[in-house]
Amino acid sequence: MQEIERFLRCPTPEAWLAAVPDHLDVLLIDHANCEKKAAGTALSLLYRYVDHPQLLMRLSKLAREELRHFEQVLSVMRKRAIEYRHLSASRYAGGLRDWGRTHEPARLVDVLLIGAVVEARSCERFLRLQSVLDDELAEFYRGLCESEARHFRIYLDYAAEVSPEPIDERLASLLALEASLIESADDAFRFHSGVPG
Amino acid sequence: MQEIERFLRCPTPEAWLAAVPDHLDVLLIDHANCEKKAAGTALSLLYRYVDHPQLLMRLSKLAREELRHFEQVLSVMRKRAIEYRHLSASRYAGGLRDWGRTHEPARLVDVLLIGAVVEARSCERFLRLQSVLDDELAEFYRGLCESEARHFRIYLDYAAEVSPEPIDERLASLLALEASLIESADDAFRFHSGVPG
Repeated sequence: MQEIERFLRCPTPEAWLAAVPDHLDVLLIDHANCEKKAAGTALSLLYRYVDHPQLLMRLSKLAREELRHFEQVLSVMRKRAIEYRHLSASRYAGGLRDWGRTHEPARLVDVLLIGAVVEARSCERFLRLQSVLDDELAEFYRGLCESEARHFRIYLDYAAEVSPEPIDERLASLLALEASLIESADDAFRFHSGVPG
Repeated sequence: MQEIERFLRCPTPEAWLAAVPDHLDVLLIDHANCEKKAAGTALSLLYRYVDHPQLLMRLSKLAREELRHFEQVLSVMRKRAIEYRHLSASRYAGGLRDWGRTHEPARLVDVLLIGAVVEARSCERFLRLQSVLDDELAEFYRGLCESEARHFRIYLDYAAEVSPEPIDERLASLLALEASLIESADDAFRFHSGVPG
């Protein structure tokens, strides 16, 4: 996991962690949403990139894993009698998406880089959450961390593979943006929100 | 499987079966597309119906199963050196979709009924295909049939559960439309196309 911590430009702020116990229901509902969206993103790539057979296979497996996590979050919610309600989207995902280029092959490279960064941040948050959650939830999140780290690798490696030029510069720009979304004040508490304020 | 055959209003026409050997690549590519779309439909319901916790769990599992089938079709294609290319959508899915009502709760009922009918037809076709495929493909499709039959049940039962009125009339109208799409001439050969012509 040190790889993930070195990869990201900043750790999750203490203020976000401190807000978790008062927002446990939102944390879980938004986490369920994140797993759905991760599966949805992978699925949308299955539609667009049928000429990348290796990518199709990896993404389909990844989508299945995200859906399994979604079901696990649903089970935790049911056990705790947390009702699933609609939540507005987090600023984070939209902020990253807007950064992506829209012409190919840059579009694919950027979507994969965003995927890598989101998986890395999720993994980092799962680990940092350990200190503020009860034992049952802490263990649940520890268990999910490994697959997020694997997904991070899949996205990052494939981005490097399909990019016609080195990805370093593009990745640095994305990581700087991501850190600014994580470190700045954010109105709504969400799984990937910034500093509560 | 007799349940499925009794449920549908017509069997797959012989003329469609006769066209299969000359369109094996299209059959497999369009089948891969169908599995993706089935997963996509289930996923879109996960977004829209967060107030149906039981449905969410069942649909997420169903989507995972469709994605596993997608991966299996990809493997068959790779083994046979069939290249994945874009195919126009089949008349079938659009024809059924247009039949669905757009106001709730009718919208959910209709989407579930359409799901049931598509799974039933897929199952029926998987079985009928046995007579025109080589041993390896015949076995592959026989293996998939069981889960399609299970998905058919999930969709049909849940439609009956959430519908404020008996589903019989609505289902009869849908099955008549489905039979007309299957029995009439269709320009493009696809997994769910009508009589080639």
